[in-house]
Amino acid sequence: MAATYPVDGTNRMKRRHDRGFYDHETVHRLLDAAALCHVSYVIDGQPFCTPTLFWRKNSTLYWHGSSASRMLRNQAEGHPVCLTVTHLDSLVLARCGFNHSADYRSVMAFGRARPVTDPAERAEALVDAVDLLFADRTAGLRPSTGQEIKATGVIAMDIERASAKIRAKGVVDEEEDYDLPIYAERIPVRTVLGAPEPCSRLQPGVERPASLAGYHEGRPLEDALAEVRSAAGD
Amino acid sequence: MAATYPVDGTNRMKRRHDRGFYDHETVHRLLDAAALCHVSYVIDGQPFCTPTLFWRKNSTLYWHGSSASRMLRNQAEGHPVCLTVTHLDSLVLARCGFNHSADYRSVMAFGRARPVTDPAERAEALVDAVDLLFADRTAGLRPSTGQEIKATGVIAMDIERASAKIRAKGVVDEEEDYDLPIYAERIPVRTVLGAPEPCSRLQPGVERPASLAGYHEGRPLEDALAEVRSAAGD
Repeated sequence: MAATYPVDGTNRMKRRHDRGFYDHETVHRLLDAAALCHVSYVIDGQPFCTPTLFWRKNSTLYWHGSSASRMLRNQAEGHPVCLTVTHLDSLVLARCGFNHSADYRSVMAFGRARPVTDPAERAEALVDAVDLLFADRTAGLRPSTGQEIKATGVIAMDIERASAKIRAKGVVDEEEDYDLPIYAERIPVRTVLGAPEPCSRLQPGVERPASLAGYHEGRPLEDALAEVRSAAGD
Repeated sequence: MAATYPVDGTNRMKRRHDRGFYDHETVHRLLDAAALCHVSYVIDGQPFCTPTLFWRKNSTLYWHGSSASRMLRNQAEGHPVCLTVTHLDSLVLARCGFNHSADYRSVMAFGRARPVTDPAERAEALVDAVDLLFADRTAGLRPSTGQEIKATGVIAMDIERASAKIRAKGVVDEEEDYDLPIYAERIPVRTVLGAPEPCSRLQPGVERPASLAGYHEGRPLEDALAEVRSAAGD
């Protein structure tokens, strides 16, 4: 049987059962197709929803930022967090207001924040932060300084529960409404790469590494990310 | 003086002051450029981060969903929420790991949930939910039934505090690192529309309304949205 995340009242899809998935394969695939997530956490009863870059290793999600940031200072050991990724795939225009909708793929992952303090896990995380976006990039960079490493906070969240939700069906109307003379359509939405813009201050002879070939104009961002991450494996 | 949202410990940019904006014009422009947001709320101490479509009227944000959904049932009168919108504009590859970054424009808006129960505000909200995505569309649709209206929950949040955060500078390295023979670039990221896909069950002679002309292949989603919303005015 395929590995799945445990299901309880937090992540169970109470309605729309047909849209819900809990298996690692689906959840991880949708996470790996994104660079950006939204992390929710609570300070004194007030929820915050902060966008940030993130990455996955096995069933652990990581994000990082300035050690001084509010988000990182308040994501102390054991604090509950929810990390959500959403891919908007279309806008759906139906024959009545009620059936207007959108196609999307999303994951909500639940766990507890764990500031990464172990030096080995921290060092690996700071490499992954770059190399799980751009394969093998760290090896060719100016090494991080002690001050840079100290200034970077890293948070891990072992996924305790997660659910994926997928709508991928375009226009769906009430059966009797298909007879009406009303226009309906699905408008696809895609997040794509533009033409890479080399830094204007490159040294003479410095060429774009072949390892960046997957990042080319017009390609869906998620395809470029999935390629890097499937090559990195679990 | 331009209208701004009040600033306190919740929304003040403590670091990176150059990236922070509190004026209505900037905050509203970034909100109006998005159809999708992430809403954070708290149930029994556990934060949830739910993606949903939303829209703005003046300084009030609205979202809707099934009356039976967990999100809507738990966003009771007065519950604190945070609604965040993020536009990812690029991935930035620098000459060291520390300066890898992304260009983005985001808004975090804070307030309290207010279930919309007044019949007039509800009726207006259900029209806006469609017409602030697709100009004048509701007038040509099959009218909503009482059952559909009953099944739709609408939440409003009057914005009490908000901040916009913008990074738009591509590659920025330490001055001495520009001398290194390391490749660096900015990779633009755009969310664009695909070719509209008419419903396969359209009645003969039903044409695409001219009012949808702004939704055409290759156009950035945010431009199409901004056009509809600036025409609707405040």
